[in-house]
Amino acid sequence: MTLIYILDLLGTFVFAISGVMIAVKNKFDLVGAVIIGIVTAVGGGTLRDMMIGETPVSWMQDITYLLVILAALPICFFFFKPLQKLRKGIFLFDTIGIALFTILGIQKTLAIGLSPIVAVMMGIVSAVFGGVIRDVLTNEVPLIFRKEVYATACLAGAITYLSLENFIGNTSLNMIPAILVVFIIRYFAVKKQWEIPFRPLSS
Amino acid sequence: MTLIYILDLLGTFVFAISGVMIAVKNKFDLVGAVIIGIVTAVGGGTLRDMMIGETPVSWMQDITYLLVILAALPICFFFFKPLQKLRKGIFLFDTIGIALFTILGIQKTLAIGLSPIVAVMMGIVSAVFGGVIRDVLTNEVPLIFRKEVYATACLAGAITYLSLENFIGNTSLNMIPAILVVFIIRYFAVKKQWEIPFRPLSS
Amino acid sequence: MTLIYILDLLGTFVFAISGVMIAVKNKFDLVGAVIIGIVTAVGGGTLRDMMIGETPVSWMQDITYLLVILAALPICFFFFKPLQKLRKGIFLFDTIGIALFTILGIQKTLAIGLSPIVAVMMGIVSAVFGGVIRDVLTNEVPLIFRKEVYATACLAGAITYLSLENFIGNTSLNMIPAILVVFIIRYFAVKKQWEIPFRPLSS
Repeated sequence: MTLIYILDLLGTFVFAISGVMIAVKNKFDLVGAVIIGIVTAVGGGTLRDMMIGETPVSWMQDITYLLVILAALPICFFFFKPLQKLRKGIFLFDTIGIALFTILGIQKTLAIGLSPIVAVMMGIVSAVFGGVIRDVLTNEVPLIFRKEVYATACLAGAITYLSLENFIGNTSLNMIPAILVVFIIRYFAVKKQWEIPFRPLSS
Repeated sequence: MTLIYILDLLGTFVFAISGVMIAVKNKFDLVGAVIIGIVTAVGGGTLRDMMIGETPVSWMQDITYLLVILAALPICFFFFKPLQKLRKGIFLFDTIGIALFTILGIQKTLAIGLSPIVAVMMGIVSAVFGGVIRDVLTNEVPLIFRKEVYATACLAGAITYLSLENFIGNTSLNMIPAILVVFIIRYFAVKKQWEIPFRPLSS
Repeated sequence: MTLIYILDLLGTFVFAISGVMIAVKNKFDLVGAVIIGIVTAVGGGTLRDMMIGETPVSWMQDITYLLVILAALPICFFFFKPLQKLRKGIFLFDTIGIALFTILGIQKTLAIGLSPIVAVMMGIVSAVFGGVIRDVLTNEVPLIFRKEVYATACLAGAITYLSLENFIGNTSLNMIPAILVVFIIRYFAVKKQWEIPFRPLSS
């Protein structure tokens, strides 16, 4: 449980860093940067919580998340250039982040009695909508829907996790293969620049 | 009741088709297309439910809606070109869809004791915000606010419905004139390319 | 209490005016203009209420807010040109508006038992996200994040207010210095065209 909590905070931190870096690129001021950091890090979970009715949304009930996000500001302030070079290292944590957010979103949705297919949707929302809202607020087309097989990797991880829960039983070890599936798909997608548009037969 | 349910599913299906077709145009991948399909079809009702506090939002409690939306994917995959030509046929269902979404939104809002003017707002939100959120996510200016008298037709239908409820009494037959009003306004608006900007006297 | 209520309605009215004027610029139709007016005026509070779980959102429970917003339509219709010239006069009310929205957001969040840091966030959300959502719907980059020290002024006001509550005690007089802080910062920011981007050391 503690490991999951630490990974969750780590994912939140990495997402916040990526949000703040985009705020810097857009010349946002300090408060703007904080808002984009928060939106990127907890926007997906916030939307999920509002939709399933788990309010006040989760990050409001454990200040640690906000503190972790705020910590992204001095880190970006002092280490901006190294962070830009560190893209690959960040990729590791970012991918663990979306995998974990997917699974935690699934667990939370199942816990209030909603069906597995809704849980999968909410898992994906938790993982990707922080980035989507960030892109909307900075007026970019959300790349998540077509680049880097981002949401698709979450879907594969979600299905892996739910299958294991179903066939093997409820154990937190099921997270490991699910996270690996997300990681492997994302790794090859980024490395080989996969793009798999949904292309109709007759178009 | 069953007829309303079937029309609601039909409206959902048509909205999902329109969302997936825009996802194809934007070269979204499969999961991106699913997300845009869901957003277009149930985004308005989701926003309404979150605002009035009816959570988990309604489509989470009846899997049929998600299945109908997912069915839009193979349909778009196999029949993309015919669908593009079918615009006029789609127009019929789309307009019945927004009319019905408006009325169902009004009913739901009144049912939890909110005032008629709020119910009218929530009816319009139910009908048009799926398309608005879809446009925001694909970085287009939402046309709904100025083209094809879209939201205005919903308002006219909403007022018709509430007037009938008020003067004639609560019967589901009141839906028919309300839907007709939406349909007739939209029909002429599209045919004659009406645009009625709100233009101040002194501008 | 009555004075706060009147100021709240005044802020709502000024925000609605600014929303409708942007709708006119974008050639929205009547219903589009109403929607943008509502979004601008109560969008921030709506998002706050959905996140903290205070639903149905507050403006649904007191029709006066909607009526005040609707009143912006004839005002904009008849006095568009004078309103454009009145920018400076509007600035006064707009700034009182965001200051008040910040404080009311803080009070509401504290009232349901959430922590001060969350309350500050929700105060800023109440004040600035109406404008943010308006900008998103009209496909503009939200300027609030970088121009006119908008969100930063709210933060300063929020900290002032919470400090006074903490050190002096709970009295509605604490609002006055908080509103003054927001006003003074905004006044100089606009006058001297301050922009204070968050610029990392090593970038």
